[in-house]
Amino acid sequence: MTYIVDFEPIGRRVEAREGETVLQVAQQGRIGLAALCGGAGTCGRCLVQVMSGAMSPVTEDERERVSEKRLSEGFRLACQARVQSDLKIDVPPSSLTTSQRTQVEGRELDVPLDPVVHSHEVQLAPATPEDLRSDATRLCGRLRQEGSGCVRVDLGAAQRLPVLLRAHDWRVTAAVIHNKVVAVLPPQSRPLGLAVDLGTTKVAGYLIDLKTGRRLAAHGMMNPQIAYGEDVMTRLTYVVQHEDGARQLQQVIAAGLDELARKLCKKAGHAPEDVVEAVIVGNTAMHHLLLGLPAKQLGSAPYVPALSEPCDLVARDIGLTFAPDMFIHTLPNIAGFVGADHVAMLLGSGIYKAEDTVMGLDIGTNTEVALKVGHRLWTCSTASGPAFEGAHIQAGMRAASGAVERVWIDGDQVSYQVIDDQPPVGMCGSGVLDAVGQLRKIGLLNEVGAMSLDHPRARRGERGPEFVVVPRSESGNEHDIVLTRRDVSEIQLAKGAMRAGAEVLMQEAGITVDDLDRIVIAGAFGSYIDVRNALRVGMFPPLLPEQFEQVGNAAGVGARLALVSAELRELAQEIATRARYVELTSDPRFTEAFADAMVMP
Amino acid sequence: MTYIVDFEPIGRRVEAREGETVLQVAQQGRIGLAALCGGAGTCGRCLVQVMSGAMSPVTEDERERVSEKRLSEGFRLACQARVQSDLKIDVPPSSLTTSQRTQVEGRELDVPLDPVVHSHEVQLAPATPEDLRSDATRLCGRLRQEGSGCVRVDLGAAQRLPVLLRAHDWRVTAAVIHNKVVAVLPPQSRPLGLAVDLGTTKVAGYLIDLKTGRRLAAHGMMNPQIAYGEDVMTRLTYVVQHEDGARQLQQVIAAGLDELARKLCKKAGHAPEDVVEAVIVGNTAMHHLLLGLPAKQLGSAPYVPALSEPCDLVARDIGLTFAPDMFIHTLPNIAGFVGADHVAMLLGSGIYKAEDTVMGLDIGTNTEVALKVGHRLWTCSTASGPAFEGAHIQAGMRAASGAVERVWIDGDQVSYQVIDDQPPVGMCGSGVLDAVGQLRKIGLLNEVGAMSLDHPRARRGERGPEFVVVPRSESGNEHDIVLTRRDVSEIQLAKGAMRAGAEVLMQEAGITVDDLDRIVIAGAFGSYIDVRNALRVGMFPPLLPEQFEQVGNAAGVGARLALVSAELRELAQEIATRARYVELTSDPRFTEAFADAMVMP
Repeated sequence: MTYIVDFEPIGRRVEAREGETVLQVAQQGRIGLAALCGGAGTCGRCLVQVMSGAMSPVTEDERERVSEKRLSEGFRLACQARVQSDLKIDVPPSSLTTSQRTQVEGRELDVPLDPVVHSHEVQLAPATPEDLRSDATRLCGRLRQEGSGCVRVDLGAAQRLPVLLRAHDWRVTAAVIHNKVVAVLPPQSRPLGLAVDLGTTKVAGYLIDLKTGRRLAAHGMMNPQIAYGEDVMTRLTYVVQHEDGARQLQQVIAAGLDELARKLCKKAGHAPEDVVEAVIVGNTAMHHLLLGLPAKQLGSAPYVPALSEPCDLVARDIGLTFAPDMFIHTLPNIAGFVGADHVAMLLGSGIYKAEDTVMGLDIGTNTEVALKVGHRLWTCSTASGPAFEGAHIQAGMRAASGAVERVWIDGDQVSYQVIDDQPPVGMCGSGVLDAVGQLRKIGLLNEVGAMSLDHPRARRGERGPEFVVVPRSESGNEHDIVLTRRDVSEIQLAKGAMRAGAEVLMQEAGITVDDLDRIVIAGAFGSYIDVRNALRVGMFPPLLPEQFEQVGNAAGVGARLALVSAELRELAQEIATRARYVELTSDPRFTEAFADAMVMP
Repeated sequence: MTYIVDFEPIGRRVEAREGETVLQVAQQGRIGLAALCGGAGTCGRCLVQVMSGAMSPVTEDERERVSEKRLSEGFRLACQARVQSDLKIDVPPSSLTTSQRTQVEGRELDVPLDPVVHSHEVQLAPATPEDLRSDATRLCGRLRQEGSGCVRVDLGAAQRLPVLLRAHDWRVTAAVIHNKVVAVLPPQSRPLGLAVDLGTTKVAGYLIDLKTGRRLAAHGMMNPQIAYGEDVMTRLTYVVQHEDGARQLQQVIAAGLDELARKLCKKAGHAPEDVVEAVIVGNTAMHHLLLGLPAKQLGSAPYVPALSEPCDLVARDIGLTFAPDMFIHTLPNIAGFVGADHVAMLLGSGIYKAEDTVMGLDIGTNTEVALKVGHRLWTCSTASGPAFEGAHIQAGMRAASGAVERVWIDGDQVSYQVIDDQPPVGMCGSGVLDAVGQLRKIGLLNEVGAMSLDHPRARRGERGPEFVVVPRSESGNEHDIVLTRRDVSEIQLAKGAMRAGAEVLMQEAGITVDDLDRIVIAGAFGSYIDVRNALRVGMFPPLLPEQFEQVGNAAGVGARLALVSAELRELAQEIATRARYVELTSDPRFTEAFADAMVMP
């Protein structure tokens, strides 16, 4: 009896025989699961969490090494637990030997440094019997003398002030937001800012010196909510169907952000309490799940957010512990499926100030499309699905070590490139897109995606025609890495939705593709794709390759800009208000465009 | 072997023989400890907590009826635990048959209703595919149509809004503070306010209908921090000496306020989430301990507060759970020992707007004195000590059932009045003051407090002269209730400190007693005392009795005023800024005045 074991958040599916250990299955799938003891059950490193499915009973070795609480939560040692059904397994980062590739880089924009947080190092006169002002009054008085409009001290800062003042001879660094002292730090400290791009799949964090605007550290991680659903809709469904679901997802992401921030501080050699403000952007669902806002109405028509305005809160309000007094600003959302991350992308890519006619796409499980024509701005969101993340693809996996990320086909010759130059294990989104584009180029796929077998690597597989990208003879895997006809359909659906959204926006704006000056592609996937292959499958309106700009994580850049520029933070609100959101689900133009867009040129 | 058992928060000391049960000792002391089973160890009602001292081992009956956690915290059944040393016992309210008398009443002032919280019941248009605004945007838009300047929705309100709107056909009551929606309630709800006077010994709470200003319920309780020190200084010492002390005291008072608020809501038949704003006043130390502000610097010279400004926070910031999204406003403090409760007293007594020359005293463990001459205002604080709460007095106890609260001596005739008309158990502050005043009246005490034995009730006791106020033949107690020479000294010290403060303020203002038009006495003790006896012992500057006003809990009234009048809340800040604080500890005038003020006229 064979079963399918689904490893998350890596996104790798591996076939398993009944009774094999999860570690054996992972190893067959070339998943870098830590197993220092070689699977003897003694090192306890290969800890995984079973999300669904049946396994062999817990062994004595597991009882010894895994706490009762964790066992009750479904944690097992991969070397001890044996497969007894299809399984969904969550692999915590600590159990992986290699980490996932998450994109943190993006093009930097040059903006004048004008952070919302101002910092002042001040020397106060000590309290004496003749001068009995409270510590807070004393600090505000001094700041006012320096020309700051400071009028009050926030509770969190007031709690730290007395001890700091007396430990540092009445000298202190004060961080001020809008006339309020939000944090006090020892003298010569540098107030730091945290920018977070909170994606459905990946989370990117940046630590910024607010005095200089300099980036001190960047770090990416998987969104730990993936264990509860890989896309927005399944996560919203989880919340609606589980009474405690919203709280669970909130706690999971809060713990994730805590870990991310602590890592960034460690990397940069700074104390967590030096982080005085964070700007967090995410799609509307991630925003709501983080802030503890009800998400039920987001998941059903007409899909309205609870809150679209920018929001100012304090870290402890949402259970963050690494710097509980840190202020948090969330950028505004545009609509239920066009969130603050898209606003940040428009900021970070510079589209907000473009004077030409430009389209922007932030490609992910949901793809947001923006179209700017003069001073007017339209946006929409399309459910492109997780195919570009490597999901629902037979040999698909996320962009981690061992993923085929590039494919070239030249006649009978097939070559490829693998992340980290490891032996290939599967294909990530850009590899799959390349494979489809190259097969279309050589004519092995027709315009509706039918696959001819007229190639040495093409063959009839169990479920229809398939193309061998990496034969097992080359990889040393048990199976060939193939692209199936069904995989091609998945890509057609994904790119079709995206393209249809782009078409409807152009119709709405009353322009044609000839009016478009350029297309900006943002997001991790968007920065690794080969635009020529994307054009071959018809993913984008047909401009010339040189009219495309791949800007990387522009949402992350936008979050950083909102941290270091009060003017751009204001502007974010203006963008959100001005953007005209086009709801596609109820738009007959979309249905029509979608059918057309499934076709490859 | 005999020991002393100290019952808190009742403040009653009882002698005990080794091996007696705590219940027996309590009964000898006429403390109404619940013991439904008559001490058989079966009802579990007589639960007490041992704060210090040695007792017999935990019995089987206790193991059966008291949880392991509580046992580990020192909880015992009074009928089972036997005395083996001096003991300090905390009696939870649930274990008492009668409750303490705490003062919640005060003179009401008539002010125009103008609460900081405005409430609006609004009907919103439902979300449709044509109108996809977020719930928060929709609400703000409607409020703006109604003329409210509302621009944003607080996170806590946004979290409740979507569910409420959809459950009530898009109709909702919004509570708005300064252009921010702080709470949303079902339609036809009435936003409520909570006013709290947080005293060192007693806490008074009031539930107010913010639409009408009407008081819906009032309730008093003991400050549960008493278990950690009966006056401000011992509590500050506890915090300094115990690493976790501040957090402990903070949690204890937060739990106490939760309980108080829940009781008020239950009394009034309202849901806790209807309470949208609280105004809390307390002395500076209580304020700091509640807000988690460092208190160390408050307890050592020059005694400066961390924060004296008014503070706006949210209930969850300080761990309140009964309405975690409730907004809280704390009134400003004047100095380390003149807190927001004094500012509230100046508001609540009307002294702030007096046009005559008036002195105000808020008598407690610390007594704050204010002097208003024209537009000028002086304040000081004197450590009058807990004698007026019945502490440090041989037969002293707090103002609870069974306390002698009034004493009249006419020749050989001694009469008295007991709280709740119960058999007398001890004397509370007003009773002790009466006894001293009456003994001075009949000349049994001379001006320095020496006691003559020339009275049938006077005798030489173990520790010097004493006067039998209630002989055991009348009370049925084991001992006579006596006033000792040492008790007289305690009263001299307490009243001397208070009087000296009053004298220094008059010197500072450049006036004499002849310039004073009236004296306002606030606070629980102050409202129960006989002013004539107080004048006999020289507690106040010698005005005529009719020049005194006893206004009850004026601080509580002031807190309520700050809840229902935005103007008076502003004014509180002005009062705190304008008040000139006179520090007595370093003032040579005080030392001199104190020596004089010990004498009785």
